Amino acid sequence: MRNICMTVSYDGTAYCGFQTQPNQNTIQDVLERALLSLTGETIKVTSSGRTDAGVHARCQVINYFTASKIPVERWCMALNTLLPADILVSGAKVVDDDFHSRRAAVQKTYRYTIRCGKHPDVFKRHLEFYHPTPLNTEEMRAGLEYLIGEHDFTSFCSIRSTKLSNIRTVYEARMECELLDPILQSYAIHIYLTGNGFLYNMVRIIAGTLIQVGEGKRSSESVKDILDARNRASAGPTAMSHGLTLWEVLYR
Amino acid sequence: MRNICMTVSYDGTAYCGFQTQPNQNTIQDVLERALLSLTGETIKVTSSGRTDAGVHARCQVINYFTASKIPVERWCMALNTLLPADILVSGAKVVDDDFHSRRAAVQKTYRYTIRCGKHPDVFKRHLEFYHPTPLNTEEMRAGLEYLIGEHDFTSFCSIRSTKLSNIRTVYEARMECELLDPILQSYAIHIYLTGNGFLYNMVRIIAGTLIQVGEGKRSSESVKDILDARNRASAGPTAMSHGLTLWEVLYR
Repeated sequence: MRNICMTVSYDGTAYCGFQTQPNQNTIQDVLERALLSLTGETIKVTSSGRTDAGVHARCQVINYFTASKIPVERWCMALNTLLPADILVSGAKVVDDDFHSRRAAVQKTYRYTIRCGKHPDVFKRHLEFYHPTPLNTEEMRAGLEYLIGEHDFTSFCSIRSTKLSNIRTVYEARMECELLDPILQSYAIHIYLTGNGFLYNMVRIIAGTLIQVGEGKRSSESVKDILDARNRASAGPTAMSHGLTLWEVLYR
Repeated sequence: MRNICMTVSYDGTAYCGFQTQPNQNTIQDVLERALLSLTGETIKVTSSGRTDAGVHARCQVINYFTASKIPVERWCMALNTLLPADILVSGAKVVDDDFHSRRAAVQKTYRYTIRCGKHPDVFKRHLEFYHPTPLNTEEMRAGLEYLIGEHDFTSFCSIRSTKLSNIRTVYEARMECELLDPILQSYAIHIYLTGNGFLYNMVRIIAGTLIQVGEGKRSSESVKDILDARNRASAGPTAMSHGLTLWEVLYR
């Protein structure tokens, strides 16, 4: 048996998230069906972490064990011919047997994208949360700063979470503004969050809270108070899933 | 009756082109249904030009006559609530009765996009033609130069065209290369063509021919010979429609 690690990109629009669920169409199901059809083996795929329904991945990392003799450099092409156009595998290597794509991940980056302006961008409608009025990006940036470092992120975690500890470290939190499209009269705000791990809905609740900061409904300083409150009710709403992309996963 | 001019963006993936066709789903049909539902009038929409099945528009221009009293600044919002998410109207103004969105257009720009690299970009799979091997962009750029100016574009026109004259002027022909994505190991080539008018399939045949130049199957100089031949058979294949976007239409 070999342990194979692969990089997967997906447009999550059509899927009920990464992880297998009863009677749902998930990324994991589609990957495992493609692996079954390629190898004849019933293979269980492990990922760096689940993504919610509608969330995308530029770079999800998976691993699985197989007895198949297919050379590692052939896995991508072979699988891509079996996968639908919205899921793509773009890298494969043999890793040590003790490699586990979730446990070995030391750092993850998520990106949340908000489109502001008179109109959404038709070509990115599945990838950007559309907000019709302008947002105060300077205030949002200031709010984002409070999240950097080790904190108890209970306020930014779904009450459905079952994790024992809500303490996580955010290494980097930054915002990029993409220029106005002269035709669509719009601009995109990308929020990048890098940390050692993220709680259930954490990035989406942070995005939902920062949107309120950008709207002037909350001050940037309130982000610190929300952290201190350790209470989900103190934060803003969970922003819609389609603006979120798992951007990068780093390993030792 | 007022003559109203609007800007329309659409993702052409799900449509059989702009223009109404029997038993087909077209952009024009969807726009006219939305206008009927908004105004109660059977309105015929005129565009700056038809686009083929699967072709997109960043900025298509349409006009139509209506007796409706809806203030012009309300048309966009009212129509967008009735239109599907892949069609968006982003500008509306009242124009002179003799304005005709096709006849008054003095300049059009199309963009054709090719993605080169080990893998396609999952998020732009509907918007980019994927070419797995690298292309010689310098040769393509040199080939593109020959198209600038007034020429008989018969070689770059579908034999199904019914136009009397195939003489058109290309004002600008340029290429932009978008940087490599480190994860997807890919880059995009955007070909922009600006002219006073384009023949049936003209941009797609130019793109198909330039791809062959980039592959080394033809020299850049052959583009001049193809023009001189005035024979569709001398040019390359018609590149796939989903890489093409109507980028801009200019009026006097």
